[in-house]
Amino acid sequence: MTQADVSFSHLLLGTCDYPEHVPQDRPPVYARMQRELGLSFVRLAEFAWSRLEPLPGTFEWGWLDDAVEAYHAEGLRVVLCTPTPTPPAWLIRAHPEILAFDDQGRVREFGSRRHYDFASPVFREHSRRITRAIAERYGQHPAVAGWQTDNEFGCHATSRSYGGASAARFPEWLREKYGTLDALNAAWGNVFWSMEYTDWAQVRPPILTVTEVNPSHVLDYNRFASDMIREFQAEQVELLRELSPGRFVTHNFMIFESGFDHYDVARGLDFVTWDNYPTGMLELFAPPGIGEDLRTRYARTGHPDLVGFNHDLYRGLLSGGERLGRDGAGTPDGPWVMEQQCGQVNWAPYNPMPADGAVALWTAQAWAHGADVVSYFRWRAATMAQEVMHSGLLRHDETPDRGFAEVAALDQTAFPVGPVPARVALLHDYESLWIYDQQPHAQGLNYWTQTVTYYMALRRLGIDVDVIHADADLSGYAVVVAPAITLVSAGRAARWTDAVNAGAQLVCGPRTAFRTPGGETWSDGQFGPLSELVGARLLQYDSLRPTLRQTVSGAGDLSGTFEASTWAESYRLSGAQALAHYRGGPLDGQAAVIRRGNVTVIGAHSDALIGAVLEGVLGEAGVPVLPVPEGVRVSRRAGQLLVQNWNPEPVEWNGTTLPPVSFVVRPVEAGQPLEGEQDA
Amino acid sequence: MTQADVSFSHLLLGTCDYPEHVPQDRPPVYARMQRELGLSFVRLAEFAWSRLEPLPGTFEWGWLDDAVEAYHAEGLRVVLCTPTPTPPAWLIRAHPEILAFDDQGRVREFGSRRHYDFASPVFREHSRRITRAIAERYGQHPAVAGWQTDNEFGCHATSRSYGGASAARFPEWLREKYGTLDALNAAWGNVFWSMEYTDWAQVRPPILTVTEVNPSHVLDYNRFASDMIREFQAEQVELLRELSPGRFVTHNFMIFESGFDHYDVARGLDFVTWDNYPTGMLELFAPPGIGEDLRTRYARTGHPDLVGFNHDLYRGLLSGGERLGRDGAGTPDGPWVMEQQCGQVNWAPYNPMPADGAVALWTAQAWAHGADVVSYFRWRAATMAQEVMHSGLLRHDETPDRGFAEVAALDQTAFPVGPVPARVALLHDYESLWIYDQQPHAQGLNYWTQTVTYYMALRRLGIDVDVIHADADLSGYAVVVAPAITLVSAGRAARWTDAVNAGAQLVCGPRTAFRTPGGETWSDGQFGPLSELVGARLLQYDSLRPTLRQTVSGAGDLSGTFEASTWAESYRLSGAQALAHYRGGPLDGQAAVIRRGNVTVIGAHSDALIGAVLEGVLGEAGVPVLPVPEGVRVSRRAGQLLVQNWNPEPVEWNGTTLPPVSFVVRPVEAGQPLEGEQDA
Amino acid sequence: MTQADVSFSHLLLGTCDYPEHVPQDRPPVYARMQRELGLSFVRLAEFAWSRLEPLPGTFEWGWLDDAVEAYHAEGLRVVLCTPTPTPPAWLIRAHPEILAFDDQGRVREFGSRRHYDFASPVFREHSRRITRAIAERYGQHPAVAGWQTDNEFGCHATSRSYGGASAARFPEWLREKYGTLDALNAAWGNVFWSMEYTDWAQVRPPILTVTEVNPSHVLDYNRFASDMIREFQAEQVELLRELSPGRFVTHNFMIFESGFDHYDVARGLDFVTWDNYPTGMLELFAPPGIGEDLRTRYARTGHPDLVGFNHDLYRGLLSGGERLGRDGAGTPDGPWVMEQQCGQVNWAPYNPMPADGAVALWTAQAWAHGADVVSYFRWRAATMAQEVMHSGLLRHDETPDRGFAEVAALDQTAFPVGPVPARVALLHDYESLWIYDQQPHAQGLNYWTQTVTYYMALRRLGIDVDVIHADADLSGYAVVVAPAITLVSAGRAARWTDAVNAGAQLVCGPRTAFRTPGGETWSDGQFGPLSELVGARLLQYDSLRPTLRQTVSGAGDLSGTFEASTWAESYRLSGAQALAHYRGGPLDGQAAVIRRGNVTVIGAHSDALIGAVLEGVLGEAGVPVLPVPEGVRVSRRAGQLLVQNWNPEPVEWNGTTLPPVSFVVRPVEAGQPLEGEQDA
Repeated sequence: MTQADVSFSHLLLGTCDYPEHVPQDRPPVYARMQRELGLSFVRLAEFAWSRLEPLPGTFEWGWLDDAVEAYHAEGLRVVLCTPTPTPPAWLIRAHPEILAFDDQGRVREFGSRRHYDFASPVFREHSRRITRAIAERYGQHPAVAGWQTDNEFGCHATSRSYGGASAARFPEWLREKYGTLDALNAAWGNVFWSMEYTDWAQVRPPILTVTEVNPSHVLDYNRFASDMIREFQAEQVELLRELSPGRFVTHNFMIFESGFDHYDVARGLDFVTWDNYPTGMLELFAPPGIGEDLRTRYARTGHPDLVGFNHDLYRGLLSGGERLGRDGAGTPDGPWVMEQQCGQVNWAPYNPMPADGAVALWTAQAWAHGADVVSYFRWRAATMAQEVMHSGLLRHDETPDRGFAEVAALDQTAFPVGPVPARVALLHDYESLWIYDQQPHAQGLNYWTQTVTYYMALRRLGIDVDVIHADADLSGYAVVVAPAITLVSAGRAARWTDAVNAGAQLVCGPRTAFRTPGGETWSDGQFGPLSELVGARLLQYDSLRPTLRQTVSGAGDLSGTFEASTWAESYRLSGAQALAHYRGGPLDGQAAVIRRGNVTVIGAHSDALIGAVLEGVLGEAGVPVLPVPEGVRVSRRAGQLLVQNWNPEPVEWNGTTLPPVSFVVRPVEAGQPLEGEQDA
Repeated sequence: MTQADVSFSHLLLGTCDYPEHVPQDRPPVYARMQRELGLSFVRLAEFAWSRLEPLPGTFEWGWLDDAVEAYHAEGLRVVLCTPTPTPPAWLIRAHPEILAFDDQGRVREFGSRRHYDFASPVFREHSRRITRAIAERYGQHPAVAGWQTDNEFGCHATSRSYGGASAARFPEWLREKYGTLDALNAAWGNVFWSMEYTDWAQVRPPILTVTEVNPSHVLDYNRFASDMIREFQAEQVELLRELSPGRFVTHNFMIFESGFDHYDVARGLDFVTWDNYPTGMLELFAPPGIGEDLRTRYARTGHPDLVGFNHDLYRGLLSGGERLGRDGAGTPDGPWVMEQQCGQVNWAPYNPMPADGAVALWTAQAWAHGADVVSYFRWRAATMAQEVMHSGLLRHDETPDRGFAEVAALDQTAFPVGPVPARVALLHDYESLWIYDQQPHAQGLNYWTQTVTYYMALRRLGIDVDVIHADADLSGYAVVVAPAITLVSAGRAARWTDAVNAGAQLVCGPRTAFRTPGGETWSDGQFGPLSELVGARLLQYDSLRPTLRQTVSGAGDLSGTFEASTWAESYRLSGAQALAHYRGGPLDGQAAVIRRGNVTVIGAHSDALIGAVLEGVLGEAGVPVLPVPEGVRVSRRAGQLLVQNWNPEPVEWNGTTLPPVSFVVRPVEAGQPLEGEQDA
Repeated sequence: MTQADVSFSHLLLGTCDYPEHVPQDRPPVYARMQRELGLSFVRLAEFAWSRLEPLPGTFEWGWLDDAVEAYHAEGLRVVLCTPTPTPPAWLIRAHPEILAFDDQGRVREFGSRRHYDFASPVFREHSRRITRAIAERYGQHPAVAGWQTDNEFGCHATSRSYGGASAARFPEWLREKYGTLDALNAAWGNVFWSMEYTDWAQVRPPILTVTEVNPSHVLDYNRFASDMIREFQAEQVELLRELSPGRFVTHNFMIFESGFDHYDVARGLDFVTWDNYPTGMLELFAPPGIGEDLRTRYARTGHPDLVGFNHDLYRGLLSGGERLGRDGAGTPDGPWVMEQQCGQVNWAPYNPMPADGAVALWTAQAWAHGADVVSYFRWRAATMAQEVMHSGLLRHDETPDRGFAEVAALDQTAFPVGPVPARVALLHDYESLWIYDQQPHAQGLNYWTQTVTYYMALRRLGIDVDVIHADADLSGYAVVVAPAITLVSAGRAARWTDAVNAGAQLVCGPRTAFRTPGGETWSDGQFGPLSELVGARLLQYDSLRPTLRQTVSGAGDLSGTFEASTWAESYRLSGAQALAHYRGGPLDGQAAVIRRGNVTVIGAHSDALIGAVLEGVLGEAGVPVLPVPEGVRVSRRAGQLLVQNWNPEPVEWNGTTLPPVSFVVRPVEAGQPLEGEQDA
């Protein structure tokens, strides 16, 4: 069997397996079971460094050779990993300078995983060494479909090391960026509290300062740390390209991970994968705007839009990128879900069992949001160490767990691959995220909350969304939504202006263009270089404590009264018109929502207001909406419509009863509005 | 007066006094007052190292000589202490390597108490030196009844030191235990994240890792730290045995202290004492399952079952042990309450005054749960330093405080010594506690909560309980309850099986036998070696967030509907029958409570369900129950029944009015059921 | 123009400006705008060290010369600062021993501000050097009205450094204070846990101990740290006196700052200024007794009494002090508000916009509480670094913000300068605060809460209050209130006795005279040396958890029933009479409020009880009260009465409608009671 032999017109499935964790007679048994279950891929070895190289320079390939052959024999294609997330004890104790430092300035000890500093030259050398060794061994094995670099960059707050190798490299990085100390001091506004540097070596990681550190210092440290990850991975990718031609290279990104610029790091990969744990995501990673009511309602499924957002986010990382290493008709285009929850997780404060049907629903949603492969984590629940209480497709005792049955019941052919037909783009940018969250100004609102609020409003209107970079190509989109792009350069403003001039509708949230690329404010105030396009300037912004609300009253088409929480900002108009005004409070009578031509800005944080404005804009743009009830969602792909019910109870909708936690796939008739769909 | 002169057929009283804190004319005055109050014992000198040895090698015995003579002159018997909880400044500054490290890797500074590392060879030497000196001086003094080692091992999280001497000793301890690194790596499952060691010196304390540390690593560190305490105390005990023949040696253990294996550490003592602070216990040490309603109701008394559990726990530490150093008819057998709260404490977030009658009630309960001596802490409230706001029998100004009057009013002869006649054993095991709490999987449930929930259900049924080690001799018990013994070895399973075969009823809580002794899961799943006895295997376990409940529906004798919170697990039956099933949710229709012969397993966490199952099992076992109202408790000892009302209001029960915070002692007629007692 | 040229009979205004943050063409423009706005003062350069001395020993005065001339040209008077809060990078990296340590023992890093240790001899030298340099340059410039030392001592918990230079100096300070180690050990009660020292060098900062550190150790460390601040400032003041004759020297103190003895540190200044941020104060510094309801009601104004208390506190720091450096009729006497919030702040969890009218109201209140100058922070909102989201009189884009308009509308002549006519003194003492808060014994009550509770009760009765030191001259006061003076020396007791004998009414809160100056308790119990005056001794004290209340029942004139929370103490009478008793609970029937002659003690914490007792005492003292509704406040100064409405809605009072967030100034007719004022 060669790379091209796998025919591939629909969703494929896989799993993550750990032959090093079980007796050597198990992989052949598991491989057969996996084939019988209908799996096509198996991921191996991301944590196996100590078994591949038990002593410095001494490699033991036998167990992995056997495992690869066992899976190969059953027709499974293997995804191999560079085992760099877990440098073994012999390496760390010999070179403690590899260890990372936390944001309290403490060294992060050996004894779990991800304990290395991406900037460490010593670790870089060993990373290349082990990558070369494993790639030389397996790079051209017919079973090997591709590679995953490392594992979950940034997990456990490991994107940034605040001492050691990173601290040593940072001044050098700054010198490369700024050239002179005057430029650095000016860019950071270091004059503010006499923070000006007179020597590059004076600059340290932005921690343990007496009070808040300079946000521009943080912004550049985040950029630096992101660069270190990019460099680190690029070294592995280069070796994999050389030694494993025709195989894909990818990485499995993490839920809402914010520690690095994923667009930068993804560049050079063939496609993006991510690790999808809907229930843990809801308990541990949900933005603060998701309250106890939603956490309870969706405790056993996760929230549809949190999951959907991550799908769309990771699908969009490489949108428009070229294919680099993939080869052959049978190689999926991506994205994948590399690790798909298939039972309960073990890492949230509470780890409820998924509802009946949840594993199938998650799989169907993943497909509808663009996934070509869904790979379940993990094959068999671990019997040792940190994750014994994380479930797998098999239980500890090797009996099939509940998720196994749901996977077995799936008809993979019902999920054809093909494009997600989004006419709406939602803009995202890690630099805006970093600077926004560095100075939130109002507890309860952060970048993800603000962004996801707009995303959810679109999903409630039945809209498919591309989440793309704020500087991405906007052509072809009818509506562009920028919920929280607070950092806007002149170039970015120009690109948005072009899109608007080309006919796109642009909707911006509050704090848009508040910041320069350096993290300062525009000295002519928000909206800086976007002011002309918007036709207004910032007048006031108000940070609402949880016990305060601000009324917004719509005018004309935008009728109704809305209650803003957390944030309200108003505008001084210079060309724009007010669609809504504040009523009461210190903003009384000021403009809350403004519009100039195709550009709309929403100054207040209010689910209902955002939904109403977006519905109006979509109408103007000719994008039909399909309002759906709470917990019901629609997604479209490859001519199919996926109708999902995420509620724990049945829902009547459009004359049909949707059972609890269920889905239906049916064709979308081109040009035919769906039942209930509203004409633009 | 000699050791044997104290006649001893009933409860005796004592106090803790600090002659070093007061002018030298006070001890004679205090001794007289103590005698007049009816006290028999006075404990001295546990924190007095800097007064006994003010400079290295320079001893000043005069003040203590005078104090011992003063108490002796009034007929009080003295309990002396090794002053090792407070090594003085001259020792610490000369040997800073004595200092312990906290779990953040920071050295724990001199300036309070318990700042030493049990593993420190330097401190061990000084511990032996000061123990020898004080034992040589007073070991054969006629007033000296016995010795307390150190004070409250583990208090302030001092059981474990995470650096320094302990870090240095740990690898050695591991080598002694495992012999080879392969054995260590296998036992811990270090392959999981390439955590395998290639040199003993690579192993460190389990802190500051990037994410969760390997729970097996933690489990062995806890065992190691417990061993250090055992060794430390054994060195003192050996000297005391040699130099103070015929005197008892004991230690005063702490409320719910979890930092070491108390069974191991107690071995070699004559009897166990503990320090009983009911109101502080409720505010600060109550398990998370004790809510605000109970914390309010019992704010001025403590919760009867939290106190009772600790009494039964510490009484059971040496059950079955031999008498080692005691001598003479008049020496109590133990256990004691070495420090009994007699007014408000100072160390909880809130420190309410005890209710009128609480000191007497606590004393009576202590007796009924087996105490031979109750010693009040402290004689006079301290006027200086950390504990000025902790009360004593005397106020700062030496006037008698409220507790004094309650002690004076006690008739000690109403409390005859003798056995506590328990037919129910509740099993406990520090290793299960450690591994349970290392991976709780559901906030709100931990080992103590789960264990105390079962204990409270028994107490609400009027049952006397022995809390004993999970490997203790079970003969003679009609019912054995294992609420949270999650770590079950093959040997343990065999002992339980023997007890069941001998006729005992066994009731297990959830997670029983989930773990091997190494801390892994059984590769054939829960219940591992207990599976045959139980007649079932684990099917699912569910972690319920606080807003979720799971309905359980009983069948047959176990009628009714129950609401589980926090935890619900179900079973695949292979011989057992289901007594109750889950209704609704992902466990719908699965077995919640199962029974095979004499063995019952309760999979759901529900006070009412646990009570109902236990009541049925007690009935089958022929143990009569006596259901009591909220806050009313009964306890039996030496043929007497103690009826207690812990409520702040009077309660009508069995035709009697029990005043608030009060008790009655009356004979139990052998074979005669109590009024209200239900036949088995 | 010379110092004396400014005529000065009414409130003057100013602002804080940062010429170093803006292009060099801006200061002339800003100065003109400031003059046109009616401002008289501009404060400069407190954070400008790196611009004044960009490299070691290299000074650049040009930019500040230009700025001073620009302001001078427009007639503004300049307040210059020593720039010591922000030692620059070149100094810190050359002398890292300057850095302070936090209470976790970690060095506090460069990168924000206030990173120095007051005890550092190296930093002291550089502090004198830069002070001399700037004072030589500008000390006699005609525009320079005076000096501010450093900026906001103690802000960001910087009063105390727990390592480095402070740790090195502390033993020396102790030796100077105590002379012998025996004296130190006795004063601290170090015998308690063998904490006795045998060498001065053994003593360390009171952190990282295993459990609670000795409170006497903490008390002396706080005194020591306070002394270091005093010494540090005195060195600057000495140079400024020498080099800038005739100019005032002041410091801008912080809201509720507790880290040092402000009376000691203020000594030697001409007058005191403070930094008034009412909304941030409410969100971040409000004592725990201020609940969510008040935090919401006053979210856009701050709470009137929190602000008022700080005004009265800082006005009282130098009451009775001599004028030191001021010269000329036109120099204000002080106090000032050096930084007055004039828009939203950026440093609280929520930062709501001030209500319309709030800036004017704050200014008026500042005047009525004694301020001669109110200086707004800051002129233009910063466009860079940590405070971009803090507002100023101008926005980022230099347009006037809302506060600007309110300042422009003020009639400064409506606010004549003159005395605040208080007949009631409220006593305050930082040492009592330190020892009280070191052992609070009941969460929810601390020194500030207890003190402010009494202050608020007085303000609700329409009373003007002087907040003065507990050892201050009490002559002339009709009523003296000591809410929380827990540390009472014999001398203090004698002074209070003299005042009472001279006719003053004395009202004490709970815990009064519980402690000796060393921090121990009086060995004859509370009230120690005050016992004779009070005619009672402490009987019991009760710490009430939040779910417990204690009823108090008044007798005679003090009729009614009250509910105490948090704290209740009772008394054994020896001359005093009980005005109220406890009902129910363990204090049932005991005295709750007692009185002997002119001395009243309130043992229970209850707003209503405190108000009722104070109203009675004021009546006896012949001080007329004027009860005001919620949020309405009256203050008197220089013959004028300021009536304020801090509510967000209008209030009907005395036949007038007070608009929301508004004030009225009208004359107080001497001897004429106000409408609604109640005769004594």
